[in-house]
Amino acid sequence: MTLRRFSGNPILTPADVPPSRDDYEVIGVFNAGAVRFGDEILLLLRVAERPKQTDPARVRVPWLDTTQRPARFGELSWDRDDPDLDVSDPRGFRYRGRHYLTSVSHLRVARSRDGYRFSVDRKPAMFPAEPYEAYGIEDPRITPMGDEYWITYVAVSKWGVVTALARTRDFVAYERMGILFPPENKNVVLFPGRINGRLFALHRPSEGAFGNRVIWSAASPDGLAWGSHRVALALRPDRWDCRRVGAGAVPFRTSHGWLEIYHGVDDGDRYHLGLALFDLERPDVLIGRSPKPVLSPDAPYEATGFFSGVVFSCGAVVEDNGLVRVYYGCADDSMAVAEATVDELLDLVEPVGAGARPAALP
Amino acid sequence: MTLRRFSGNPILTPADVPPSRDDYEVIGVFNAGAVRFGDEILLLLRVAERPKQTDPARVRVPWLDTTQRPARFGELSWDRDDPDLDVSDPRGFRYRGRHYLTSVSHLRVARSRDGYRFSVDRKPAMFPAEPYEAYGIEDPRITPMGDEYWITYVAVSKWGVVTALARTRDFVAYERMGILFPPENKNVVLFPGRINGRLFALHRPSEGAFGNRVIWSAASPDGLAWGSHRVALALRPDRWDCRRVGAGAVPFRTSHGWLEIYHGVDDGDRYHLGLALFDLERPDVLIGRSPKPVLSPDAPYEATGFFSGVVFSCGAVVEDNGLVRVYYGCADDSMAVAEATVDELLDLVEPVGAGARPAALP
Repeated sequence: MTLRRFSGNPILTPADVPPSRDDYEVIGVFNAGAVRFGDEILLLLRVAERPKQTDPARVRVPWLDTTQRPARFGELSWDRDDPDLDVSDPRGFRYRGRHYLTSVSHLRVARSRDGYRFSVDRKPAMFPAEPYEAYGIEDPRITPMGDEYWITYVAVSKWGVVTALARTRDFVAYERMGILFPPENKNVVLFPGRINGRLFALHRPSEGAFGNRVIWSAASPDGLAWGSHRVALALRPDRWDCRRVGAGAVPFRTSHGWLEIYHGVDDGDRYHLGLALFDLERPDVLIGRSPKPVLSPDAPYEATGFFSGVVFSCGAVVEDNGLVRVYYGCADDSMAVAEATVDELLDLVEPVGAGARPAALP
Repeated sequence: MTLRRFSGNPILTPADVPPSRDDYEVIGVFNAGAVRFGDEILLLLRVAERPKQTDPARVRVPWLDTTQRPARFGELSWDRDDPDLDVSDPRGFRYRGRHYLTSVSHLRVARSRDGYRFSVDRKPAMFPAEPYEAYGIEDPRITPMGDEYWITYVAVSKWGVVTALARTRDFVAYERMGILFPPENKNVVLFPGRINGRLFALHRPSEGAFGNRVIWSAASPDGLAWGSHRVALALRPDRWDCRRVGAGAVPFRTSHGWLEIYHGVDDGDRYHLGLALFDLERPDVLIGRSPKPVLSPDAPYEATGFFSGVVFSCGAVVEDNGLVRVYYGCADDSMAVAEATVDELLDLVEPVGAGARPAALP
């Protein structure tokens, strides 16, 4: 068995989210962090918006001037039929060798009592404010750390794609703690709390001339400085996770290990969700993996959308009764939820021997 | 004035270095770390070697099987006229979309009393031994840390290009401390000792869709885990450092600031050396920079070679009388030295105001 989709999916679409300004439109609400907070389940949504495209002959893309407080939207525009403009990827245009994101993302809170019906805050929770956030903040993951919630998020700017940290106690005030992983790094999840005195993370550097997009682990004395980098989970040729992988939901503790819901991309550029299990005492050591995806982008709202063929999770919530609700972005435009019990998920994981692990890096 | 070249340059060429095995040839000795050690100046050379190319119709490239102890050379070869083989870059071939380094590098000690005439050890000091070193170890920088010397070096493997750390007290035994900066990261230098309780580094992540190859700074509580990543030194349009920059020699303390000899690459792909000055109390804050290079690849042994048009420093030695000897690789095949006094170098640095600094990252 695999994850069971909620019958009311998608649970949030762009129509549910007011833009941050009247002349802008929300084109995506997706890749939300998820956490239980008191008697509510909170989603921290990635909200992508852009100037309303009022003139069909022009394309307009936003950016943010973060030297202003608060940051102010700026705009670039081109003739849609400019021969130098490449609009083949809806997520980002290319113009004369440079990339431009077609939207700027901020983070927004949505709240629910039952985990299925969410109401969306009218105002952003976190809005780009730092130079390294000028092209947007994306894909938050929320890790409970004592009384606090630590939020790792992707920040994009002309300085590159990095992962930064913010902390909150109340999902009202957020304190930025700076960049944890320098360019280019995405898909960072922090394990909850200290394990044998250290904090652990999974992260996903980009490749250069050598390497692939695989999951690395790191450890930290304080959550801000990271070292002990090792390859934690590699590609599997000819499978659903043969092209690239990245951590997804924040890992949660089970009797058998830390369970991680990660994404894998296949040769057809489709994003699936699967399971990885890490040692309870050594969360940088992979001990299990699901041979097959637990969710593939087959539902209509996953198969077709802003960027078609994507299921992508940044958060799951585990109830006391063992039910795991996996929140996930669909086709880079909406949010959905699917579920299973912890035991059902563990049944899908096969042990990984030392020989199948990435070569041990010290 | 700029750096004065030693009249006996180059000081080391491949002919001075015995290969690590008889059927191999040394094709480059370059990009050496440099340090005063007792009454000697030590260079830690990058030595690039490959199988002797005995058959003109075939090309043979090496790699290392690091699952063996010690690691064992393996080899790949192709017909030189294979239409799928791209040999346009002598440093690395491309074959059916994959990159292959044409040599494997290890590290070798050379010793000198006068700083100009060096004798090269017959055996490697550090040889690739870990999975993340399977395609070689390169470009060492040596930082004195109390009784120890910390060596940052580039490690290349199928997992990517990373920077790792090794420690030694005697340049006989070396202890590997793991990866400091995950892919893709090169040109890492550590500042000597703690500054206001922390250790500092300059590093150079590679760009992805966004960003350029610029110098970042980082800080650490222990030298192994790194955080507080900031952009430290950016490109200057239309100058000698407009295309990419990277830290070079290990920074040294002067009365005016930490002096760093960095490399800049111009629009013609030529590598120059220039100066950056960082605040003594805040080594992540740039306070000065040389408008012009202090060394450009104009000498015949710099202008032409294995990879032509390169001067590239990984180490400089400052004498008590203020003389700075800058050791540098030439055209990716030989070593040379050029010099100036500290005062002469400081005269070439112009102050950098807050406005000219990269946008402040927290």
